[in-house]
Amino acid sequence: MNDKTAAPLIWGLGIGPGDPDLITLKAHKILARVDVVAYPAPTGSDSLVRAIAAPHIPADAEEIVISTPMVTERFPAQDVYDKAAAEISACAEAGKTVAVLCEGDPFFFGSFMYLFARLSERWNVGVVPGISSLNAGAAELRLPLASRDEVVSIIPATLDEDIIAQKLATADTAVIIKIGRHLDKVKRVLEDAGLAGKARYIERATMENQRIENLSELTGKTAPYFSLIILRKNGDI
Amino acid sequence: MNDKTAAPLIWGLGIGPGDPDLITLKAHKILARVDVVAYPAPTGSDSLVRAIAAPHIPADAEEIVISTPMVTERFPAQDVYDKAAAEISACAEAGKTVAVLCEGDPFFFGSFMYLFARLSERWNVGVVPGISSLNAGAAELRLPLASRDEVVSIIPATLDEDIIAQKLATADTAVIIKIGRHLDKVKRVLEDAGLAGKARYIERATMENQRIENLSELTGKTAPYFSLIILRKNGDI
Repeated sequence: MNDKTAAPLIWGLGIGPGDPDLITLKAHKILARVDVVAYPAPTGSDSLVRAIAAPHIPADAEEIVISTPMVTERFPAQDVYDKAAAEISACAEAGKTVAVLCEGDPFFFGSFMYLFARLSERWNVGVVPGISSLNAGAAELRLPLASRDEVVSIIPATLDEDIIAQKLATADTAVIIKIGRHLDKVKRVLEDAGLAGKARYIERATMENQRIENLSELTGKTAPYFSLIILRKNGDI
Repeated sequence: MNDKTAAPLIWGLGIGPGDPDLITLKAHKILARVDVVAYPAPTGSDSLVRAIAAPHIPADAEEIVISTPMVTERFPAQDVYDKAAAEISACAEAGKTVAVLCEGDPFFFGSFMYLFARLSERWNVGVVPGISSLNAGAAELRLPLASRDEVVSIIPATLDEDIIAQKLATADTAVIIKIGRHLDKVKRVLEDAGLAGKARYIERATMENQRIENLSELTGKTAPYFSLIILRKNGDI
């Protein structure tokens, strides 16, 4: 049952950035026939990724909610993933197939990697890539990310101000992610570098409440977690 | 007919990295009902992206081949895109819908952006993001790209050796793309930086002839254009 060459019983499925139609055919086909779906949800709140995938989840699928306390952005509670991995493993032991729903792409800043680390030694875990907010954001902003020999850097806004400034300085295209409560800091770094005018902001790309705004019009202190700024220095293609 | 608020007549569709099932439902639905498909092909050769999308192209679709001379990696022949944009525009004028097929993601190092630049002032051009080789490569290598506050840099191998070395030094995860005839140079940079042992190589991710290899076993002077190296410095998650 845990033969690592057999077809996967456990899958990490990229569900995409928000529009339910931005799931791949491959993930869609797998999801249509799984026995169990597992997904993260902030403790006491609904799961965003479950909502995105809702049209594709079989009506009779069992559900495992990975209840994630929102303590800090930086240090996921490892016991949460221990418990979830044990539940998922138990399903696979019983011969059930399990899809772990992942916002965007499973291996691009997603919490799935914590489950993968716990499950992949024992099980053949399938990973289906997904559309990340990076690609969806660029499409919605109508802004090509890069061409030719341009360097793209993806920079978490959680980093210190001077580190962000330094990373911005050396990239042709910078994508600043995880803005959240770091909005003020990010705006300051961009302004100090004389780059604020070129920065494009999008939140909740391809979701129903998507919003595109000029940086200067973002007056609040925080932005949603699912927001990003794309800065392409070389305006022409 | 060229009302920019109307539904798009012209689409850039991300077709994904190689596996025909790694197209999104959205792109699949659009492709199923277009009148015309347009795609690049090296002069005198078959089109890779057309082959990937083949199962999804309507049997009666007209086809526009964007014949691209393989002169150099760096400077696409702009007259090729002028001609293609004129052909696509003529189709839209006639009320036909046109899908431009894009390997991976349309706005991530793709030639679609040259068409977009020519067409988007006049037409409402829809852009559907696609799975890039970056995400597909990570999934196939079973290697998470980044977590927490790690910085990811995407570095074209076409850059000079010292620039690549410098970009490698400042990223937590480096993805080296467009390896092609730059394989020797890339290997040298990685070895000089003491990072070769951590570098993972994949070519033609999710295509039938996908290949994963240790760097040291790549003995040829060149690699396919569709190859990449992922280097994640921080081994643990």
